[in-house]
Amino acid sequence: MEEVRVFCPATIANISCGFDVLGLALDSVGDEMVVRKTIKKGVFITKIDGQNLPLQTEKNAAGVAGLALLEKSNYPGGFEIEIYKKIKPGSGIGSSAASSAGAVWAMDYLLGHPFTKTELVTFAMEGERLASEVAHADNVAPALFGDFTLVRSYTPLDIVPIKAPEELYATIIHPQIEVKTSDSRKILKTTLSMETAIKQWGNVGGLIAGLLQNDYELIGRSLEDHIVEPIRSILIPGFDKVKKASLEAGALGAGISGSGPSIFALCRGRDNAENVARTMKEVYVNIGVEHDIHVSKINHEGVRLV
Amino acid sequence: MEEVRVFCPATIANISCGFDVLGLALDSVGDEMVVRKTIKKGVFITKIDGQNLPLQTEKNAAGVAGLALLEKSNYPGGFEIEIYKKIKPGSGIGSSAASSAGAVWAMDYLLGHPFTKTELVTFAMEGERLASEVAHADNVAPALFGDFTLVRSYTPLDIVPIKAPEELYATIIHPQIEVKTSDSRKILKTTLSMETAIKQWGNVGGLIAGLLQNDYELIGRSLEDHIVEPIRSILIPGFDKVKKASLEAGALGAGISGSGPSIFALCRGRDNAENVARTMKEVYVNIGVEHDIHVSKINHEGVRLV
Repeated sequence: MEEVRVFCPATIANISCGFDVLGLALDSVGDEMVVRKTIKKGVFITKIDGQNLPLQTEKNAAGVAGLALLEKSNYPGGFEIEIYKKIKPGSGIGSSAASSAGAVWAMDYLLGHPFTKTELVTFAMEGERLASEVAHADNVAPALFGDFTLVRSYTPLDIVPIKAPEELYATIIHPQIEVKTSDSRKILKTTLSMETAIKQWGNVGGLIAGLLQNDYELIGRSLEDHIVEPIRSILIPGFDKVKKASLEAGALGAGISGSGPSIFALCRGRDNAENVARTMKEVYVNIGVEHDIHVSKINHEGVRLV
Repeated sequence: MEEVRVFCPATIANISCGFDVLGLALDSVGDEMVVRKTIKKGVFITKIDGQNLPLQTEKNAAGVAGLALLEKSNYPGGFEIEIYKKIKPGSGIGSSAASSAGAVWAMDYLLGHPFTKTELVTFAMEGERLASEVAHADNVAPALFGDFTLVRSYTPLDIVPIKAPEELYATIIHPQIEVKTSDSRKILKTTLSMETAIKQWGNVGGLIAGLLQNDYELIGRSLEDHIVEPIRSILIPGFDKVKKASLEAGALGAGISGSGPSIFALCRGRDNAENVARTMKEVYVNIGVEHDIHVSKINHEGVRLV
């Protein structure tokens, strides 16, 4: 095999109570990427379609992630990458993670799977370091494993895959505004009260139990965030209205995707997710916010061949 | 049915990362209690065997919990209670919770189950309020539900039962020293860093996933507490040595039971739990600390008929 074409899923990180630890992969929202072996050593981005992103390897998340893999491999050649970008950078659904995860998954595939998934996560994290200055795993882990993932620990890296119930869908609305990642980080507090922290880990436990036991109501009750959402939502136009409308339309829960500005809702079944999408859209039409909207099943495998 | 005899399990609360939310019930450590109907309205403690505890209803955890149930019931009579106390008060394995939970479970049984288990938890919490000034649920919930329980929320009360893997055992060592609950509470900090809190909820998620997926290694890796254990362990003689010895003897993890002074270890299989017990004992024999030791399977049903 000399060339593969892969689907690289968009992802939702910071799922409500699971700030910095819980993410999920989407099934029908994502980029495509063609990766082919080259005789020349190195990683070469030969084409980026759909977005204006740097072609230089060292300035591109896929390039940097690929170089990290190549460095740990005994493969004497290199790779060419074409990126067909559909996820908008800065939307909060893991644009750089899709590129990073897709690149390393495809390279590992072409080399005959020399690496574990967790090793692929560590390579893809280098792409995240380039994109956001922090080598975080909460988008690249679900992009590579599929379903939900829990980043239990970074030292050592411990990724816990959590299977999503079959009927779980996500609805995402992306308001076309720019929130600087540095602003959404600066606005966060660095300490919190024990009381609030206890609520948060009660909800993390509830969410994991709900997912693993197919208990949709428990998933819904656990989608609470007493720490980050009250602060970051200030930067997202109409957040409270969109969330309220989603819940009234039957969503299990809703929150900020990644560091925003996208807002996600989790729903039981496609019909409900579509219904929630219509309601979210209505809110943004009424207050005059340009937006994209996505409805997707949860992805059960992560990056995959097209 | 006019009278029942029940087994009231000891419980471990504050399981490592699950401070204030996660507890478990023991299978072979606990009190017994006889509860019988009376024509006279009220709750009457007629006998306490094994410990010197108050017989006055309003000063006894079982009495207060029973009164809370009676108040919500339309039963015109009352109950007599005999308590055969085997759990030492102040040992940190839910002595008052066993009495409170046993009393309300037996009364509900004698009345033909008018209440849900969560309602029984709310009654038993009144016994905890008497015993420790805080109406906490993290011992009475596992005492009533069995297995592990997660107190996801207090407002409203939301108890999530978490089934324990079949081969999971607990070893508990109780150093015969007094730690005042008020001291073990005062010593805690009221704020913490986001960084530490994130580690803690990553571990809570990992522990729940490990329990529900029978992944003993993940259970072990998740039994970390970066917040409470480093502080409260100061009050427990030889804590670090006992913990280290347990892990070296193959325990999955170890920590403080409740607010101490008991130390628990979770183990895979009875043989390992017995082995860990011997190692723990050796530490206390060497440093000259009087102690009790218990080995128990995890209890899958909570309070039960004898």
